[in-house]
Amino acid sequence: MKFTKMQGAGNDYVYVDCTQNELKNVSEVAVAVSDRHFGIGSDGLILIKKSDKADFFMEMYNADGSQGSMCGNGIRCVGKYVYDNGLTDKAEITVETLSGIKTLQLYPGSDGKVKTVRVNMGAPILQPEQIPADIHAFKNAEILKNVDRLVAQPISVDGKDYEVTCVSMGNPHAIVYLDKNVDLKAFELEKIGPMFENHPAFPDRVNTEFIQVCDSENLNMRVWERGSGETFACGTGACASLVATVLNGLCNDTATLHLLGGDLKITWDKKENTVYMEGPAETVFTGEWLLKEEN
Amino acid sequence: MKFTKMQGAGNDYVYVDCTQNELKNVSEVAVAVSDRHFGIGSDGLILIKKSDKADFFMEMYNADGSQGSMCGNGIRCVGKYVYDNGLTDKAEITVETLSGIKTLQLYPGSDGKVKTVRVNMGAPILQPEQIPADIHAFKNAEILKNVDRLVAQPISVDGKDYEVTCVSMGNPHAIVYLDKNVDLKAFELEKIGPMFENHPAFPDRVNTEFIQVCDSENLNMRVWERGSGETFACGTGACASLVATVLNGLCNDTATLHLLGGDLKITWDKKENTVYMEGPAETVFTGEWLLKEEN
Repeated sequence: MKFTKMQGAGNDYVYVDCTQNELKNVSEVAVAVSDRHFGIGSDGLILIKKSDKADFFMEMYNADGSQGSMCGNGIRCVGKYVYDNGLTDKAEITVETLSGIKTLQLYPGSDGKVKTVRVNMGAPILQPEQIPADIHAFKNAEILKNVDRLVAQPISVDGKDYEVTCVSMGNPHAIVYLDKNVDLKAFELEKIGPMFENHPAFPDRVNTEFIQVCDSENLNMRVWERGSGETFACGTGACASLVATVLNGLCNDTATLHLLGGDLKITWDKKENTVYMEGPAETVFTGEWLLKEEN
Repeated sequence: MKFTKMQGAGNDYVYVDCTQNELKNVSEVAVAVSDRHFGIGSDGLILIKKSDKADFFMEMYNADGSQGSMCGNGIRCVGKYVYDNGLTDKAEITVETLSGIKTLQLYPGSDGKVKTVRVNMGAPILQPEQIPADIHAFKNAEILKNVDRLVAQPISVDGKDYEVTCVSMGNPHAIVYLDKNVDLKAFELEKIGPMFENHPAFPDRVNTEFIQVCDSENLNMRVWERGSGETFACGTGACASLVATVLNGLCNDTATLHLLGGDLKITWDKKENTVYMEGPAETVFTGEWLLKEEN
């Protein structure tokens, strides 16, 4: 099985071109190739297929073999793959996913290979019940009854009050701001992250972004993802954080989020009410996975 | 850079054939390829080179770019690589390492590809001062003054007495036996391991093997490696554990060690005073690593 290992901001997947050939036992293959000691090592497997509705179809599997719907960092690499490998010569393509059709802008470098990709990440959702966030678990529950968004609202975590801003990008996010003088690298995310994740304010649990505002165009971010713990990068988290920070009046409509795995440039187009994410896509290596009977 | 990713009992390295071409900036390449998110992902890089003194030379680099001397699981894959790729047609080869020349027995399957490899791992060292183990930190220090080996001698760890047997295979090992009724998978290795590692009985710190004797030919093992924590497999640890278990009269001179990463068959040839390790070697995938300027 020929494959390409690619990564975007530290989210790494094994990519297989299935526009001509079908892959069998995909779920089992995803588990096997994702293993970081006995396999290729990745966050999962992404198959690039033909689509009736768009230029391509992205079929995504997590490392545990379950099917995923959409990954902002992963879909950028799909854009690089199809362009660099000559499956398209267009710089704007559409990709069908289980979360709908996404439009990608591809930005090739002087060598003709794609360096960064911009993805339409859709509209942010702010209504508390749609995130979902339970206002009864907030400090000012009475006041919040009639609000249509939760911006800088205090909740109590581990005996301390934190002001959170809540945004869904299809999945729920709570954004928390840290002072500039906090050492973000030394911040005990693994201790505080699970307390936000399982807080009664978030009935479906929550992804929590800890943001340090450098200036109106630069934000530092660390993220605790529900079910995954700390990750190098969370594309929807970066989008939710930009929206939250605009709502708090702390940054411009376009800013660069500095994540552990790399930088993501996020724009909230308020007229379209759409969030765009631009970030790197990199080919790490190409290879041939040996099926058991070939080894 | 063409490479092959191989693994033996869960110890995985990136292997590059350097018998014809030289690789530049090896230390930097080792760091880059070893990264499990931004690189190929491995425990390190192994170059296969020509040797004046043996059939091949194994040049080994750890994931941090430092040079390693020898790895029992790694050298088995060197044997498989040179045979499967036609660099030799001999079933017994010699490989020069920074720890001396090792002799490998290659066992090909019916498809002509090597399945398991047996490695001469050298003589066990039992003298306390050569391990090194400091008898003054043992419970029966007075009695131990004149012994030439430490077999089932109690030390106090976390307020509890553990009988340890000490063996060096070029690096120090402390072997501890657990009752059959202990759930080895649930055993809190990450809690107790560091306490052995940093115990005053072991001035150079120590690798600790926790062994459950199934029968005279089968031992279950989990290992806490100094500086690394729990690993899938430790080749020298398996050898040291077999020697220790023979000294304790609990197994035969040949037994199979069941490790998290796979099985290793260990033989202590008492006449030669040499330990042999036989275990699997597997090709996981072949690939081409893109240098920065190619990406």
